[in-house]
Amino acid sequence: MSPTFSDAGDRPRHVLCVGAAVLDTLFRVRAIPQTPGKVLPYEMLQVAEGMASSAAYAIVRLGGHASLWGAVGDDPTGQQILSELGQAEIDVSGSARVAGARSAVSTILIDDDGERLIVPFYDPKLHEEVRDVTSDDLATFDAVMVDVRWPALALKVLQAARTAGKPAILDGDVAAPEIIDRLARHADHIIFSEPAAFSLSKIADPADMVSFLRKQYPQALIVVTAGERGSYWWNEEADGVAHVPAFRVKTVDTLAAGDIFHGAYALAVTEGLTTDAAIRMASAAAALKCSSFGGRLGAPERADVLALLRDGEH
Amino acid sequence: MSPTFSDAGDRPRHVLCVGAAVLDTLFRVRAIPQTPGKVLPYEMLQVAEGMASSAAYAIVRLGGHASLWGAVGDDPTGQQILSELGQAEIDVSGSARVAGARSAVSTILIDDDGERLIVPFYDPKLHEEVRDVTSDDLATFDAVMVDVRWPALALKVLQAARTAGKPAILDGDVAAPEIIDRLARHADHIIFSEPAAFSLSKIADPADMVSFLRKQYPQALIVVTAGERGSYWWNEEADGVAHVPAFRVKTVDTLAAGDIFHGAYALAVTEGLTTDAAIRMASAAAALKCSSFGGRLGAPERADVLALLRDGEH
Repeated sequence: MSPTFSDAGDRPRHVLCVGAAVLDTLFRVRAIPQTPGKVLPYEMLQVAEGMASSAAYAIVRLGGHASLWGAVGDDPTGQQILSELGQAEIDVSGSARVAGARSAVSTILIDDDGERLIVPFYDPKLHEEVRDVTSDDLATFDAVMVDVRWPALALKVLQAARTAGKPAILDGDVAAPEIIDRLARHADHIIFSEPAAFSLSKIADPADMVSFLRKQYPQALIVVTAGERGSYWWNEEADGVAHVPAFRVKTVDTLAAGDIFHGAYALAVTEGLTTDAAIRMASAAAALKCSSFGGRLGAPERADVLALLRDGEH
Repeated sequence: MSPTFSDAGDRPRHVLCVGAAVLDTLFRVRAIPQTPGKVLPYEMLQVAEGMASSAAYAIVRLGGHASLWGAVGDDPTGQQILSELGQAEIDVSGSARVAGARSAVSTILIDDDGERLIVPFYDPKLHEEVRDVTSDDLATFDAVMVDVRWPALALKVLQAARTAGKPAILDGDVAAPEIIDRLARHADHIIFSEPAAFSLSKIADPADMVSFLRKQYPQALIVVTAGERGSYWWNEEADGVAHVPAFRVKTVDTLAAGDIFHGAYALAVTEGLTTDAAIRMASAAAALKCSSFGGRLGAPERADVLALLRDGEH
């Protein structure tokens, strides 16, 4: 039997997450407005998150260690983002405060049907500069997980990780196709969102996307996540596409669910799980997140993930 | 000839502004979205403002002194709001930081036609507590200007101002009718927005609104502002409604224009201007604000207001 998440060994694994750090403002409204005017939210929450940041938080919640290399501006919002992520026990000492840049902010309206209106703003200045990265810089990490937000740094980190023989995992979410493609060539695990996989493959069926993408990126393990329809991945041993169904939960808020998936997957990989077990773990973590409001704050603890894996329904 | 804004005497006047202090996030978009999804703004600006805060800023920009009594939470956003307003030379030492309350935030989408989608959030806890206010507390102020956001404090300030014989000015913007009505009974200048005047009078014509409202609040000078159609007020001497047309400008952003009007009007009153001159001054200041993007940051300096008064077109 393959190792499971509950007996992962004697020390917490440490994952480096590279990419987005944003101050999100979530407004819960009865319905997304269809015309200009004023809409009064019945709840509001501000939370520092973003793809890599939320993945890092998922790792911490599951008992691992996570570091974030992201970029914020030298404004009060940047201070707030790093301070909040630091309080969440993510190591942000490697993140940059960029002089003269504005920190990323996003407003998200979420209505009672789970529909969302997202208004994100990224200052291009945030991600202009990039440091050198050597495999020595990655000495303390067991794996790296990068998103598409800071492509120049993500590329260097993926390359250094492969040089160091550590898992180099890409969150392949929507971005300019040339950016995803360049990063994908240097990753050895790629978890594509369905829209991003579609943008590269122009194929509608997730299983067919996997078959196509594993030929494009033969060096990598390919996963495509398709929300309620579960995850599809290329099983090299079986020489075919495998499917992990999604867990059934009452969905309240899907914001950051994909990021929680990526964080849980990365941690599971460092703990030596098989691909199937890692994806099941990540699916369970993402499902639990969906059942609670508040973006990344809904990332589950390990005990709850294990309980869902044991008792949950697909 | 009545005094004009340019020869207002030997010392800057000092106005106490009471009410809203909010962190606004402004996103400029090509068009307000009509369906859920993602919209990418081409510009973003965060600014601490709100009705009383923006009025206070207008006063400072016009060369007066302004204090703000508002309430923020004990969170980073509250720190940011007070710090930013303080840097704008508004005296915020009388504002409250409320333990356990969240600071007010608002997201505003502004499209290329000037249409707006506004999503404001106020924590009810912000304005639950209220201090006592005596006329001694107002000793250093030449006038008070209150909005509808913190009604319990606004009421005490209006009452203390009238006891002290100082102009007690109400920004009569939309609120629960019983709140506007209670405050209006204790003000001696009321500047109603057209929607608020409509909510009290159920009358559509601004001039008729003025005739109605001056009977409701006979102790007060009544003004109704009607945007591009100018301002209407009750001229006691002439025993009739007077009209001040709006200045013609290219409108870019009307956010905070009403607040700039109120601030300029309050300052003009403390400088001894006639009502007609004060409203013209306020109209010019508001028009200049409309011609520049950025909420209250578009509040003009005195020289620009005087130039528009001299050369502007109605």
